[in-house]
Amino acid sequence: MQPGSTERTRVRRLSDKAVTDGDALRRVLDAGLVAHVAVRDDEGQPFVVPVAYARRGDQVLFHGSTGSRLFRSLADGQPTCLTVTLLDGLVLARSAFESSMNYRCAMVLGVAQRLTGDDELDALRVITEHLLPGRWNEARQPTVKERAATLTLALDLSECSLKVSEGPPDDDPADLVDPVYSQIWAGTVPMRESFDEPVTDEHTPAGVPVPPYVRAWKRS
Amino acid sequence: MQPGSTERTRVRRLSDKAVTDGDALRRVLDAGLVAHVAVRDDEGQPFVVPVAYARRGDQVLFHGSTGSRLFRSLADGQPTCLTVTLLDGLVLARSAFESSMNYRCAMVLGVAQRLTGDDELDALRVITEHLLPGRWNEARQPTVKERAATLTLALDLSECSLKVSEGPPDDDPADLVDPVYSQIWAGTVPMRESFDEPVTDEHTPAGVPVPPYVRAWKRS
Repeated sequence: MQPGSTERTRVRRLSDKAVTDGDALRRVLDAGLVAHVAVRDDEGQPFVVPVAYARRGDQVLFHGSTGSRLFRSLADGQPTCLTVTLLDGLVLARSAFESSMNYRCAMVLGVAQRLTGDDELDALRVITEHLLPGRWNEARQPTVKERAATLTLALDLSECSLKVSEGPPDDDPADLVDPVYSQIWAGTVPMRESFDEPVTDEHTPAGVPVPPYVRAWKRS
Repeated sequence: MQPGSTERTRVRRLSDKAVTDGDALRRVLDAGLVAHVAVRDDEGQPFVVPVAYARRGDQVLFHGSTGSRLFRSLADGQPTCLTVTLLDGLVLARSAFESSMNYRCAMVLGVAQRLTGDDELDALRVITEHLLPGRWNEARQPTVKERAATLTLALDLSECSLKVSEGPPDDDPADLVDPVYSQIWAGTVPMRESFDEPVTDEHTPAGVPVPPYVRAWKRS
């Protein structure tokens, strides 16, 4: 299935920032580590919950606890939205109004499906490998009891959008020739995420080094 | 008003990670740059939308466009949730099941109120100064027309929660004495966000330096 756009996911506000490129959407999902998922309780109160996730083909996968009322209601077919936002920098325009952030934001709408059996195990592998590439084969894999405590969900990328804000400030033309405001500094301040030195826990035997696959991890 | 916890915001899952300290919640809100807000359309489809925001006392402020149907429905009293998640690192346990992320997550529930007049202008200043400290006094402030295009909302911190995951992996005790799994490296990989060198836009006159207040910006 190709990532799809519908009337509901057509970007209305700042529609010049909409990107209708399935590969670009997949790249944003692949670059993020945390998604925010909408779920409401029985009284209609919405919650926005952070989750670890991963893309597998044209699905996005995430998991929670089978003990979570909110996660169970997602598995029961409650419509949801999963959003991944990557913050790329700050934008300093000449006006406060045009000052903003550069970002990439992928949004997926739909009804999640609960995965089971080997499909669920594969999804857990994909989520672990997205977050911690190389770890799945070294770590202990889930037991029957751990699997029973885990609710693994998939959302198809059939209804989704990508909004990208990038580049320099987009100032009001009048500010560019204003005697005062044309004279101030304007531009962007890029942001990056990076890893610090790994911290070995107290139970790791002396002499066991940080694995090479961990040393290889980089963020943008 | 003190940040308050209610039955709805009591942390049920992993409740040992719940933090009931108003100051800690305020610090998380003060450290974040992007919040994710829940809003649903007329058909009940939820959306999770990233917003710039700021804390002002025991309120959280954010803004959108008056042209946005979704933002207008928040101003009309639709219950919402605003979540700020700070990702602090990756947690590599000996089992895939216990592997996770360290994070701080603040969640605010309620009905947003639209701000107007001087209160709205102050809120715009607070949001700009949170994102771009020092900028408000140098940038051009909003015109009447820009103000009319901006919908500024406030949520009281009367119903909120903070969940913090920190420290080393919390492994299954059996894995710590297992002949195979006790021998693998485990620990955390801290993450940090930082600013790159500012990028001056093409309209800035030659010789105008990056302002000292921009040079002073730091992330964790």
